[in-house]
Amino acid sequence: MRGMSLRIAYFGPAGTFTEAALRRLYTEDQAEAVPFPTIMATLDAVREGVTDRGVVPLENSVEGAVTATLDELARGQALIIRTEIHLPVAFALLGREGTDLAGIKVVSGHPQAQAQCRQWLNANLPHAEWRPASSNAEAARQAAEGQIDGALAGEFAASVYGLAVLARNVHDRATAVTRFVEVSLPGKPPAPTGTDRTSVVAFLADDHPGALMEILTQFAARGVNLTRIESRPTGERLGKYCFSIDCEGHIFDARVGEALMGLHRVCGDVRFLGSYPCADEHASTTVLPGTTDAEFARAAQWLHGIR
Amino acid sequence: MRGMSLRIAYFGPAGTFTEAALRRLYTEDQAEAVPFPTIMATLDAVREGVTDRGVVPLENSVEGAVTATLDELARGQALIIRTEIHLPVAFALLGREGTDLAGIKVVSGHPQAQAQCRQWLNANLPHAEWRPASSNAEAARQAAEGQIDGALAGEFAASVYGLAVLARNVHDRATAVTRFVEVSLPGKPPAPTGTDRTSVVAFLADDHPGALMEILTQFAARGVNLTRIESRPTGERLGKYCFSIDCEGHIFDARVGEALMGLHRVCGDVRFLGSYPCADEHASTTVLPGTTDAEFARAAQWLHGIR
Amino acid sequence: MRGMSLRIAYFGPAGTFTEAALRRLYTEDQAEAVPFPTIMATLDAVREGVTDRGVVPLENSVEGAVTATLDELARGQALIIRTEIHLPVAFALLGREGTDLAGIKVVSGHPQAQAQCRQWLNANLPHAEWRPASSNAEAARQAAEGQIDGALAGEFAASVYGLAVLARNVHDRATAVTRFVEVSLPGKPPAPTGTDRTSVVAFLADDHPGALMEILTQFAARGVNLTRIESRPTGERLGKYCFSIDCEGHIFDARVGEALMGLHRVCGDVRFLGSYPCADEHASTTVLPGTTDAEFARAAQWLHGIR
Amino acid sequence: MRGMSLRIAYFGPAGTFTEAALRRLYTEDQAEAVPFPTIMATLDAVREGVTDRGVVPLENSVEGAVTATLDELARGQALIIRTEIHLPVAFALLGREGTDLAGIKVVSGHPQAQAQCRQWLNANLPHAEWRPASSNAEAARQAAEGQIDGALAGEFAASVYGLAVLARNVHDRATAVTRFVEVSLPGKPPAPTGTDRTSVVAFLADDHPGALMEILTQFAARGVNLTRIESRPTGERLGKYCFSIDCEGHIFDARVGEALMGLHRVCGDVRFLGSYPCADEHASTTVLPGTTDAEFARAAQWLHGIR
Repeated sequence: MRGMSLRIAYFGPAGTFTEAALRRLYTEDQAEAVPFPTIMATLDAVREGVTDRGVVPLENSVEGAVTATLDELARGQALIIRTEIHLPVAFALLGREGTDLAGIKVVSGHPQAQAQCRQWLNANLPHAEWRPASSNAEAARQAAEGQIDGALAGEFAASVYGLAVLARNVHDRATAVTRFVEVSLPGKPPAPTGTDRTSVVAFLADDHPGALMEILTQFAARGVNLTRIESRPTGERLGKYCFSIDCEGHIFDARVGEALMGLHRVCGDVRFLGSYPCADEHASTTVLPGTTDAEFARAAQWLHGIR
Repeated sequence: MRGMSLRIAYFGPAGTFTEAALRRLYTEDQAEAVPFPTIMATLDAVREGVTDRGVVPLENSVEGAVTATLDELARGQALIIRTEIHLPVAFALLGREGTDLAGIKVVSGHPQAQAQCRQWLNANLPHAEWRPASSNAEAARQAAEGQIDGALAGEFAASVYGLAVLARNVHDRATAVTRFVEVSLPGKPPAPTGTDRTSVVAFLADDHPGALMEILTQFAARGVNLTRIESRPTGERLGKYCFSIDCEGHIFDARVGEALMGLHRVCGDVRFLGSYPCADEHASTTVLPGTTDAEFARAAQWLHGIR
Repeated sequence: MRGMSLRIAYFGPAGTFTEAALRRLYTEDQAEAVPFPTIMATLDAVREGVTDRGVVPLENSVEGAVTATLDELARGQALIIRTEIHLPVAFALLGREGTDLAGIKVVSGHPQAQAQCRQWLNANLPHAEWRPASSNAEAARQAAEGQIDGALAGEFAASVYGLAVLARNVHDRATAVTRFVEVSLPGKPPAPTGTDRTSVVAFLADDHPGALMEILTQFAARGVNLTRIESRPTGERLGKYCFSIDCEGHIFDARVGEALMGLHRVCGDVRFLGSYPCADEHASTTVLPGTTDAEFARAAQWLHGIR
Repeated sequence: MRGMSLRIAYFGPAGTFTEAALRRLYTEDQAEAVPFPTIMATLDAVREGVTDRGVVPLENSVEGAVTATLDELARGQALIIRTEIHLPVAFALLGREGTDLAGIKVVSGHPQAQAQCRQWLNANLPHAEWRPASSNAEAARQAAEGQIDGALAGEFAASVYGLAVLARNVHDRATAVTRFVEVSLPGKPPAPTGTDRTSVVAFLADDHPGALMEILTQFAARGVNLTRIESRPTGERLGKYCFSIDCEGHIFDARVGEALMGLHRVCGDVRFLGSYPCADEHASTTVLPGTTDAEFARAAQWLHGIR
């Protein structure tokens, strides 16, 4: 029986969007999903070999980066991203059977849930007290135990915690999407598919004016298109940042490889976070003239000839 | 009696670091401090004229941007930053008189507090349950009421809530600093001091490759040095960002004015968030050759002569 | 009778391509054409008020810049370009009536003529001695006087000097074009037409790495497209250059004006050489989004509002 | 007897500055100097194996590029530069014994000689007719034969043609220097010395706005400093250029090799013109942090590790 040999950590508890993302990748027959209470604990489970892989949220189209994930991947023992999953995020208001809106005095959820349902809460529960929880599923658990009255969570959490769906689609933006990633210990990246993404963290050697421009130039000189760039504090002092970057292409592509070598030279440090297929089905990779593998190969051959 | 006519909203309740930042600017004689439960509520108090100004956190040297503040300033009715305050962040563990560490089952605080005290908590309270609160002061209040056992907060919150300091300096980084800003309704910016900072939000017109490079070029072509750049989602879809930017200099400086006009031309929209003195006492402003007000004036005069 | 009051200097003698260019602008009724033996003398005639304007060659599509013109315009008393003329350059071999190719021992012309007819000369007059002349018309004059046997010149020079056309179209490239310019003392530039060109000379403040990139950035940041850039020695030492630049657009265009002010700031010196209509009938001016006069005006208005 | 086996073509006749440059490299025992009447003929002698190498002028600090050399090296059968020679250019006025200035009706020399002695001629021979010659040595020859009265040439030409030095140092700039190059058929470049120069010609793939910026970016992204850039017409039509470029460093340097591969990718064509020691004794090569061979090697090793 092979299925049960694969164990995947996720940012739990049961009923989180992260669990739903994991289930996009694996059926229950294929993998055992193991919840951990924090993003750090989830990643540490992979680092320590407790599980084979781990699934955590990376960014949300409304709330932005999940900084705990960015920072954890940038520090400590290295992990690489193997897969990304884009999941539409639809919030429901869950509560104990028989609760009506008028009866909701305290409502809870992860802080990102509050941010994504702000307008609905203002319009429908203007007087309810907001109490942040460590996850939406934790809020659901507390609702089930009667500590709070309503929980913002994915509808799928209702059955996990024996709750009723008091209101559907309570999020302000119908198109909100969260991007999750599956990580593993470092190893050979998945094979290129033609529409791949590569993630790195670049630490500046020093903080001179124009340092960011230099970083962007390394990508531009090889025609590599960035799809995300976040500055994150290094923690040393205000004004000291590193950059978390996603670009189009795979590290096996010549243009991406040379751009990353360029980054490695001009930066104090670079951490490779993986090359993996784009989850967005509409994704396409821009390959500018002069940046194909064949053109890189011809240029190398030409140089060899004149050297 | 003029002092009491000035009312300043802050992200409360009493005992937060934000209140401490506010008190760096005004004594109790000079201004009445009015707490609000969220950053949005604090800013709305200023927008609606309930208070004259408001103080909120903007970024922390360990945890990075306070995204609620960035996003609120980028959207809705415009506000401008008039002052920044840098406050060293020193956390203490507060509890009811007589509590010892072994007796702490549940510890609480704002999620940023957990992030900044992570190592201390792991080493000293490995088995305590973490319960997030909407602010550190709220955690202190809950500790005072006996709902939880320990609260991570500034030491100054102890007297506000009648608590004892169970442990001092429980933060992992001795040098952590939080940057707060005081905002008001739009109006004439404070006069230039020579070491000023200007904040803007730039919304891309469209999302073509190289768009970020174009933005940086507008600053570089006038020798204006960036000190912070954050991408933030616009909320429309994954991969759509705006950029929250701080640069050296004052909007009254010719080089900053022209750079902002350049941004205005190449971006879909630009929101001016203020020009104000740098709080960092070691700050100095780099003025490259060819970028002084006098040189801009001479260039304009030259152009006038040949037109 | 006003027509004869307009006097135009040109790089002569009679029968040069420059005279033909001048006659594209003015009929004999409209202006008196006054030949001068060198480019310097032609320009000095304008500087000293001997003539109203002057016509000189600036560049050729085969031989490149006419450096005497570039250097003269860059130094000494300022002149501005008011008009450009593009003239297809068709060379003929001229000689005394009755001469045949076998009888040509010595052939002459301006050095550029030799360069443009190199292959024809090698194929048809492989044994003839080449003797350079100060102009093609001067070569024709010497042929008429019997000092040499053949002259490379425009066919129109035959009648001027009483010569026969021994061979037509002896140039190697059928599409060769020479660009001439009409200059005057500085004054209000001709009105914009929508497809204009602006010429300047930029002298570097110092010779640091990246100085050329800085110059290009001043144009790029305002979306101004360069159509020609030549480095020319300043004469001080090897490796010291100035840049002779043509760009699309008119100095009355906001984007061009601001780009030139930027140049003025980052360069040691800038000399404006005029804004004038493009002679190329297929010319079109690229105006990128964000660089129209209206967008510059809106940006200025926006800045005014927030200052 | 080995010396006489080495034959070097040069742009003659005897008595030119080019011959003087050649003699900086080789004594009469070491090499036979073979004069050719044009730059093209000199280079063709090398191409056809008539001589081992050839010496031609490339640029002058006053007059700029010797375009015949640039264009010949850019087209036709490839040659590479092996050595450069910087020669101070000191002009004398030569004439037949007994000639005095008042007796000079016609003065001759290469057009560059006129340009470099312009002020002296205006002040001392204002009424003399200028007659261009194909070289300064040819003018000296004509003076010896009595066809003209005075010749501008290097003083060393006097003895070659049996002339007297009528005036010394008649050039306007005391510091004028001409740069000559020795070329050979393609082969392994001379070994790096630490202060080397590399020359290439870059042909644009197409003529889009920003093409020059792309070329410069390929150098900038690897920290390679340009020392000369000339646009030259390709001959096709006005506005179509190629770029003749010198940069610091040797093609064996990793940063130069990668920059040239980058050029090869983004350009329609690139011709390598050689890597050779800088002749300027004050020359130093700027090697920016992140661009040493060791850093390139470490970056490649890092990439290998993560691939």
